[in-house]
Amino acid sequence: MRPGVALLLLSLCVSRTPGLKSRILPGRRGAGGVAAGGRTSSYRTFYFQQQIDHFGFFKNGTFKQRYLVADQHWHKSGGPILFYTGNEGDITWFCNNTGFMWDVAEQLGAMLVFAEHRYYGESLPFGAESFRDAERLNFLSSEQALADYAALVGALKKSRAGAEGSPVIAVGGSYGGMLAAWFRMKYPHVVVGALAASAPIWQFPGMVPCGVFYQIVTEVFSKGGAHCSANVRRSWIAVDRLASTDEGLRWLAAEFGLCSPLSRGDGLKSWLQETWGNLAMVNYPYGADFLQPLPAWPVQVRPLPSLLHPLLSGVAKAAKLYYNYTGQAECLDISQTATGQLGTRGWFYQACTEMVMPMCTDGVQDMFEPEEWDFQAFSDECFHEFGVRPRPDWAETAYGGRDIKSHSNIVFSNGGMDPWTGGGVTSSLSDSLVAIVIPEGAHHLDLRYNSEYDPQNVLIARAREVKYFRKWIEEARAEGREGRG
Amino acid sequence: MRPGVALLLLSLCVSRTPGLKSRILPGRRGAGGVAAGGRTSSYRTFYFQQQIDHFGFFKNGTFKQRYLVADQHWHKSGGPILFYTGNEGDITWFCNNTGFMWDVAEQLGAMLVFAEHRYYGESLPFGAESFRDAERLNFLSSEQALADYAALVGALKKSRAGAEGSPVIAVGGSYGGMLAAWFRMKYPHVVVGALAASAPIWQFPGMVPCGVFYQIVTEVFSKGGAHCSANVRRSWIAVDRLASTDEGLRWLAAEFGLCSPLSRGDGLKSWLQETWGNLAMVNYPYGADFLQPLPAWPVQVRPLPSLLHPLLSGVAKAAKLYYNYTGQAECLDISQTATGQLGTRGWFYQACTEMVMPMCTDGVQDMFEPEEWDFQAFSDECFHEFGVRPRPDWAETAYGGRDIKSHSNIVFSNGGMDPWTGGGVTSSLSDSLVAIVIPEGAHHLDLRYNSEYDPQNVLIARAREVKYFRKWIEEARAEGREGRG
Repeated sequence: MRPGVALLLLSLCVSRTPGLKSRILPGRRGAGGVAAGGRTSSYRTFYFQQQIDHFGFFKNGTFKQRYLVADQHWHKSGGPILFYTGNEGDITWFCNNTGFMWDVAEQLGAMLVFAEHRYYGESLPFGAESFRDAERLNFLSSEQALADYAALVGALKKSRAGAEGSPVIAVGGSYGGMLAAWFRMKYPHVVVGALAASAPIWQFPGMVPCGVFYQIVTEVFSKGGAHCSANVRRSWIAVDRLASTDEGLRWLAAEFGLCSPLSRGDGLKSWLQETWGNLAMVNYPYGADFLQPLPAWPVQVRPLPSLLHPLLSGVAKAAKLYYNYTGQAECLDISQTATGQLGTRGWFYQACTEMVMPMCTDGVQDMFEPEEWDFQAFSDECFHEFGVRPRPDWAETAYGGRDIKSHSNIVFSNGGMDPWTGGGVTSSLSDSLVAIVIPEGAHHLDLRYNSEYDPQNVLIARAREVKYFRKWIEEARAEGREGRG
Repeated sequence: MRPGVALLLLSLCVSRTPGLKSRILPGRRGAGGVAAGGRTSSYRTFYFQQQIDHFGFFKNGTFKQRYLVADQHWHKSGGPILFYTGNEGDITWFCNNTGFMWDVAEQLGAMLVFAEHRYYGESLPFGAESFRDAERLNFLSSEQALADYAALVGALKKSRAGAEGSPVIAVGGSYGGMLAAWFRMKYPHVVVGALAASAPIWQFPGMVPCGVFYQIVTEVFSKGGAHCSANVRRSWIAVDRLASTDEGLRWLAAEFGLCSPLSRGDGLKSWLQETWGNLAMVNYPYGADFLQPLPAWPVQVRPLPSLLHPLLSGVAKAAKLYYNYTGQAECLDISQTATGQLGTRGWFYQACTEMVMPMCTDGVQDMFEPEEWDFQAFSDECFHEFGVRPRPDWAETAYGGRDIKSHSNIVFSNGGMDPWTGGGVTSSLSDSLVAIVIPEGAHHLDLRYNSEYDPQNVLIARAREVKYFRKWIEEARAEGREGRG
């Protein structure tokens, strides 16, 4: 435990400014490097030739999709395959942050496959030009990604001796968890089941209240200490007051060590608000390097100083710590909340097309300044940025919204303290659509390596998940025997 | 019974030439007009604004999709909706040839909706330019069509008072039946069940032998009379012999009343072969105007004359009858086997992209000249015609091939004497994936109006189908009550 860090992070109980709310998305921000808790993950890297457009035939181009394979423990005739449905970032980073798969590979005799999502990491349909314009970005969608995964699994099973009869289970966290669930829903002939960890498949228009994300962030901070959320609430006005004068703006820029001077209207507050959201997401029981290198239980609280400048000095220190714990950044850039392995531009495009996730705050049920969900403003910003307009109803049409009962073999796991749990499936819908809630868990804690600091309930959750894996594998084998018989 | 017609049609037991085999597709050929057995179908016509591209956001264009609604019998609060998933033709034609839906509407208190498939009838994404090139044809696919249907159902349920809680059942025949099944598989939140009539969802590479279609055609002809298939077998060489001289070619052109002179290599034999396939498809127990106006049981047989010219004169008469029963055509055009309501060019494009259905003949198990399935030649022809190449594995990746057990609530009905039954689901896969075979049935006979000439087994089939409809409706209502409770 490092109380100094806890103190600084507590000072996080400050500041604000919404803006493009839905830029805050599941597990979006990234830090580089391997964070496997000292354990090394040994995999081989492959590339698979994919159609750029699975749903059209006019342009017949292909690209190389990266995927990682670890088959040290695989039982070569029909051992299962755990297939990570890569999300919005470099697949090696997800590979190294999904210790759960590594921990269970041996007991299941499983092959691990981590597939990179198109337009992230090295899997770029048009190379360096992939993000150049809406025409090139046109093939970045969850449907195309799922089709990639289906084609890849099919090819893998045909090309590897012994894999033809291997049951495949999809595993993913956050947006990757949404993909895992949707993969099972749309391609049940490809995967026998799915573990969708911290997957907010209901964070779409009309399915859950738009305020739920920041209400949970507030709750996490409130639980961190008696005055914490109240102090955050007070902090926004402090920023506003300073930002109202040139001198104040200069002070803020200097105190935060920003890379560029601060102007009125710059998104300092929204940047801080996103940071608090991220912090709640990664409030893990041990030091981890997920979104950023952070200590255990980073949301720790002490009352903030009540004077204006000391309050904001604390905030600045907290921000510096969050964004520069390693001390390698020369300055802080408020135009981005992430560096490294996650593809923010790609995800921003996805949010601007089909992944429309309304966010709002009211300042009453949450510690932020009130801001309504303004779809039109959001749509205009998307059009300005990419030349596209979001289709807010499409995700529900495509993936069923709350009406998913007819599907089967999906475990939805949720961290009770994860802001994304508000858009997740937290009650079982049937015997084979099972919800697991890990009360103290942050964002897909269950997908991480086992740790001595893990709370008991995450150990129980992982054990249940493995039990379902075994059940699906057994069912698939029984069906295979029937089929042959 | 009209023995004269039977005689002529018996003379159909003749001729041949394969070629682009997969141009022969479920229910592809069409005759105009309303063929509702004297009953009139009263519906209203509407248009729904659809995205041209559901899966991309670069081009945000829309088009007007036509759909027909008949709600005379609809029980206005929550009565079910029977939704016809339109296939490759003008929707009014399917509407008038799907009497089953009209027959059961009252007893179910159902609204009938017939949705037109994009690129057919009036639902043209780029108007008259829709077929101009591969760029405009790019949005013609089963996936886009299913997305259209999902969006349309969603909008219908929202816009019509009382329809919000209406369970929707998909109904379709032939390619429309494939779409009905796939609609339930991919959008189970939109439709509670599906009747897939004569839907060859397994007529794809590697799922059934490529020869099965023409083997069944042969069987139908064999059952028509003792020497029939043998005579057809003999006829090909008669055509070849005549086609080897200019005089013979002139004789053939004149005898068949062709619109243009016949040259060596013209597809007279493949045109005839397709005709025999069509004839088997529409071998209904009463006179019907489906693909063409035809008498009852059109495959009727008497031994063919064994002399060369009389044999082919008989064939010519048969072809003229088949293509010109109404006497309105001035000549026969062997470059097409269909006129009227079906969109042959659209379907040819679909066969050249994702609907790759291998066909072959061996001359032993069937009455045709041996011809292997030559994917490369087919692909080259597609490229020449449209500038696209088919993806033979895609349909299996997308729709699961033979591995569809995890789905539910689909009735697959098959005509035992329908050539397409070879690619259909003819054995039940589970309690809720039910196969029905109508031994004497031709192509989706069950979807037609009740008739006094119907064999007993089609009446039983229809009764079972309605029983499943009621079951699905009841289940959906029970679930709705649960959801509200």
